[in-house]
Amino acid sequence: MPSQELDLNHVHVSDPFLGQYQRLVRDVVIPYQWDALNDRVSDAEPSHAIENFRIAAGLENGEFYGMVFQDSDVAKWLEAVAWSLCQKPDRELERTADHVIELVEAAQCEDGYLNTYFTVKAPQDRWTNLAECHELYCAGHMIEAGVAWFQATGKRRLLNVVCRLADHIDGVFGPHENQLHGYPGHPEIELALMRLYEVTGNSRYMKLTQYFVEQRGSHPPHYYDEEYEKRGKTSYWNTYGPAWMVKDKAYSQAHEPLALQQSAIGHAVRFVYLLAGVAHLARLNNDEEKRQTCLRLWNNMVQRQLYITGGIGSQSSGEAFSSDYDLPNDTVYAESCASIGLMMFANRMLQMEGDSQYADVMERALYNTVLGGMALDGRHFFYVNPLEVHPKSIPFNHIYDHVKPIRQRWFGCACCPPNIARILTSIGHYIYTQRSNALYINLYVGNETLLDNGLKIAISGNYPWDENVSVHIRTEKPLHQTLALRMPEWCEKPRVQLNGETCEGLLQRGYLHIAREWQDDDRLEIVLPMPVRRVYGNPLLRHVAGKVAIQRGPLVYCLEQADNGTELHNLTLPPNSTFTLLEGKGIFAHKTLIQATGTRVISEEPQNQPLYRYDAAPEQQQEQKLTFIPWFSWANRGEGEMRIWVRE
Amino acid sequence: MPSQELDLNHVHVSDPFLGQYQRLVRDVVIPYQWDALNDRVSDAEPSHAIENFRIAAGLENGEFYGMVFQDSDVAKWLEAVAWSLCQKPDRELERTADHVIELVEAAQCEDGYLNTYFTVKAPQDRWTNLAECHELYCAGHMIEAGVAWFQATGKRRLLNVVCRLADHIDGVFGPHENQLHGYPGHPEIELALMRLYEVTGNSRYMKLTQYFVEQRGSHPPHYYDEEYEKRGKTSYWNTYGPAWMVKDKAYSQAHEPLALQQSAIGHAVRFVYLLAGVAHLARLNNDEEKRQTCLRLWNNMVQRQLYITGGIGSQSSGEAFSSDYDLPNDTVYAESCASIGLMMFANRMLQMEGDSQYADVMERALYNTVLGGMALDGRHFFYVNPLEVHPKSIPFNHIYDHVKPIRQRWFGCACCPPNIARILTSIGHYIYTQRSNALYINLYVGNETLLDNGLKIAISGNYPWDENVSVHIRTEKPLHQTLALRMPEWCEKPRVQLNGETCEGLLQRGYLHIAREWQDDDRLEIVLPMPVRRVYGNPLLRHVAGKVAIQRGPLVYCLEQADNGTELHNLTLPPNSTFTLLEGKGIFAHKTLIQATGTRVISEEPQNQPLYRYDAAPEQQQEQKLTFIPWFSWANRGEGEMRIWVRE
Repeated sequence: MPSQELDLNHVHVSDPFLGQYQRLVRDVVIPYQWDALNDRVSDAEPSHAIENFRIAAGLENGEFYGMVFQDSDVAKWLEAVAWSLCQKPDRELERTADHVIELVEAAQCEDGYLNTYFTVKAPQDRWTNLAECHELYCAGHMIEAGVAWFQATGKRRLLNVVCRLADHIDGVFGPHENQLHGYPGHPEIELALMRLYEVTGNSRYMKLTQYFVEQRGSHPPHYYDEEYEKRGKTSYWNTYGPAWMVKDKAYSQAHEPLALQQSAIGHAVRFVYLLAGVAHLARLNNDEEKRQTCLRLWNNMVQRQLYITGGIGSQSSGEAFSSDYDLPNDTVYAESCASIGLMMFANRMLQMEGDSQYADVMERALYNTVLGGMALDGRHFFYVNPLEVHPKSIPFNHIYDHVKPIRQRWFGCACCPPNIARILTSIGHYIYTQRSNALYINLYVGNETLLDNGLKIAISGNYPWDENVSVHIRTEKPLHQTLALRMPEWCEKPRVQLNGETCEGLLQRGYLHIAREWQDDDRLEIVLPMPVRRVYGNPLLRHVAGKVAIQRGPLVYCLEQADNGTELHNLTLPPNSTFTLLEGKGIFAHKTLIQATGTRVISEEPQNQPLYRYDAAPEQQQEQKLTFIPWFSWANRGEGEMRIWVRE
Repeated sequence: MPSQELDLNHVHVSDPFLGQYQRLVRDVVIPYQWDALNDRVSDAEPSHAIENFRIAAGLENGEFYGMVFQDSDVAKWLEAVAWSLCQKPDRELERTADHVIELVEAAQCEDGYLNTYFTVKAPQDRWTNLAECHELYCAGHMIEAGVAWFQATGKRRLLNVVCRLADHIDGVFGPHENQLHGYPGHPEIELALMRLYEVTGNSRYMKLTQYFVEQRGSHPPHYYDEEYEKRGKTSYWNTYGPAWMVKDKAYSQAHEPLALQQSAIGHAVRFVYLLAGVAHLARLNNDEEKRQTCLRLWNNMVQRQLYITGGIGSQSSGEAFSSDYDLPNDTVYAESCASIGLMMFANRMLQMEGDSQYADVMERALYNTVLGGMALDGRHFFYVNPLEVHPKSIPFNHIYDHVKPIRQRWFGCACCPPNIARILTSIGHYIYTQRSNALYINLYVGNETLLDNGLKIAISGNYPWDENVSVHIRTEKPLHQTLALRMPEWCEKPRVQLNGETCEGLLQRGYLHIAREWQDDDRLEIVLPMPVRRVYGNPLLRHVAGKVAIQRGPLVYCLEQADNGTELHNLTLPPNSTFTLLEGKGIFAHKTLIQATGTRVISEEPQNQPLYRYDAAPEQQQEQKLTFIPWFSWANRGEGEMRIWVRE
């Protein structure tokens, strides 16, 4: 069993900024989601998720209701609660969760099977529709919850449940004749099984992961087609035609073996969940071919298909990638869950490679799309995260059917809110990476943690608003340890001092490695200058040609109608404009806004003018102060226009 | 019966440019479409349209095949043949068409009913599904064909058929208790009945039009819902869900009475066909309320929802309008048929109002989208007419599912090709408008025509390429007549000379009215200076902000990859660049191309650079000669990028 020198589960977050999000998750999101899971939110679509477990457990009579993957909401809630308890114990909440765990245990079948949809609604259909029915996906989430609950509380009850579940699955699937040769339509169990392997040390879970990964996309005949024929061609989803999810194999990255795949394709969440599992497997199994697959697909994704916001999935149809350099800003999908999955994938790559490029993308996703997925009140969520909205046009043009100009309370398909909750509460896992050569500090999130050799590390500052970050060491005796500090890609000239002196270190793959015998009260002072930076798109990105985006630190900024008026497309930021930082007020308290002098095309009563005009004298422009807000905080003041990319 | 002083049907087109299109229609399109209607085109989807008539006539056994509106292809072909015969007699073609007319007559039921889908496939379902089944639409097209055949050849056989059909319909529909109180789901019969009224003088056809128009959108209960309930909720179309065409009443402009409608809405072809009929009715019935409806809806359409190409319908879903100022260039629909319908609507407005704004739009639609709908070879057609394409992205992003980067041979729904054929062959109807006060010359298309008072008019020149247009008068005796010459909106300083002297006239509503006793050999020399003009969008058009389009005369120009390389978004046309005219070669022979010095963003191997870069020095630009081709002629050199709106 791999050792953990640092208990990432109990990194105590003290960050002024993300700490506030953790409080929001604790005080608002988790209770709200608990109400939602129990159908006590009056103006939201019913969830029925807890009820499904009660019915499956035989505690009540009734019908299953909800999505085929409804169970996963309960699992994600449990995981969020687990991580939240690590941050702040709450006996009542823990008791509530323990009751849920009892319920989950009660809903588990004798043979270890666990899924309320099939148990209640279609017990005879177990494992007959992997392509469409999310059975392994739900199992994956429950396994993650079991691992988290054990890591957070030390309690084994849910861990035992999910081990029985995983063992059951390991019996059902495999290469033997009496086993099914399938793999999940929606990957997730791969990364979950690798986590289970890490806490249990039971190698059958890693082998099962390997089986799922290597079996994926092998054909002919294709497993999805085989099971489709076998079950009499029934189909669960018809969004894009009968059995489309069976037929469109690239949608679930199952069109060919992963080893042959060249680019990020299909449903974005499936892609990053899958690759997170593959990267974890590649590292722990020393599998160079799978490592190369991860590198190749990662590179395609971040070099050709990634939004500046850390969003992925440029089209609504299939919530999917489209193709290289095709990144429209207004019809984009960029699901919140996809950026969460991207963080997971990035984190596994970081563990494997120790290269800051993975942390750079992880940070970009976190501080932009992931945070932006939740309203500042913790009660409203985006599923889709556009980089540009024109609310007046949304209701009338069907290319915008998926775009909401303001966050919604809860979704029929409620994957995003609990996913945001669990990633924010488990942020400790992303701050640090423990590798054999060093302890990597990836994110400058304020926190305190204790290495098992007795070294205490406290990171403080006011990231991502302030450029100064302190790392304070406490230790009873001098201890040797290499710390690797990430030098962010957005920062041109980072400076590091040790106890007031310039600190020499070795810059390797984007990390400043400082090897030293640490003394009590050692202090690293890191300065990450955060001038406002202009960002330009690659010349192959047609949707941002001639435009500029504003970034400070890891935060991407945007214009909103509330500050800048309507018709944001008429605003220009001249190349020579200088920027002023502005302390935000009200909902922007403790946030930094940016102002610059720009220009606006003006015209009198344009609605009374013709649509097109000839040979106009140069457009009438007038100076206008432009106010940029951090994009993650857009749409917190009602409906209005927003755009990130501004004409320069 | 209104008198016609000018036989518009026999305006002899001698125009070098459009004349060539007419020849193409005659020599290629009509024969090709005849083959298609008879399923003799091997690489196209079968039509079965003639076969359906043979089966309906009892000449063959078999099943109906094709769209519910398959008959209309035959009707449109007949109409195109009629107009083509006016331009150039062709006894064999006339005989072929006469055989088709015999066949149509044979397929007509005893009671006058005529529709092969219902006669062959579902005789019991006649008139049970107006919302979805195009029965009145097909009747409308056949009525138009009957009128055209009579006007072109003087033969009454098809006219008699369609009068019986119209009489039958007039019996079925109306206000009486034993009549149906419905109206067409797809308007068309309104404009057809008004044409039938004009040639027959039978006022029941105008009254029936009035009934259909005034009945439209009246509720509750809504007629579509009533018939839907009555037939047991069966539905013919399921594209957007069961019975969507019944439910989405605005799709067919039936959500409320026309008198209450404020903006162009729904399926664009339906909208313009309907309004063409309403405008015709308003004029001949002196109906001021309907005139106001036409003015109001026209104004909304052209001032807020019209593409620079004369295209309408900004979204694929529903082939429909979206909302004011929402005109995306790449996901646009802009169906060829919609621009043809727009010409028809414009023509009726022109007849009613004598205002050049209608001719301006008509001309814009003709010389851009309508011509662009057909390849220069007459064998390939666009259904959808984008203003910008990036072919590499089309197959992978579903927002482009409807966009084809090159013209297709024939469509399963083959509405556009025969519609283009009939409008090009009947262009005489658009060149002139006979009004009580004057003969209006709308389009400077070369032609010769004879007024019934003996005045011969010959228009010559090389429009739209050359600025000089001559109008030559021949008459045996001096004759008084007012000619009204359109002064195009794109032309700043038109000049008109009469027999070498500056010609004074009265400029009224965009027409220069010249009242005079014309002498034999009088000559008007019109000079319409055609400098290359830069066109800018209204500040409310966000998709063209910061961009410029190039227009010369009525022609909108575009950049194509074949001349300018890939990544057209990296090209800029500086505000001070001057334009050079260039005589085209090869497929561009007799066409004027435009060149200007522009710049291109350059970068080495952009595919090896990151997606985003910070604080770049101003983009590296290099000079590049930009070559603009007339947009109607794009995509005649294989697949490639194209764009109309260029960064300035």
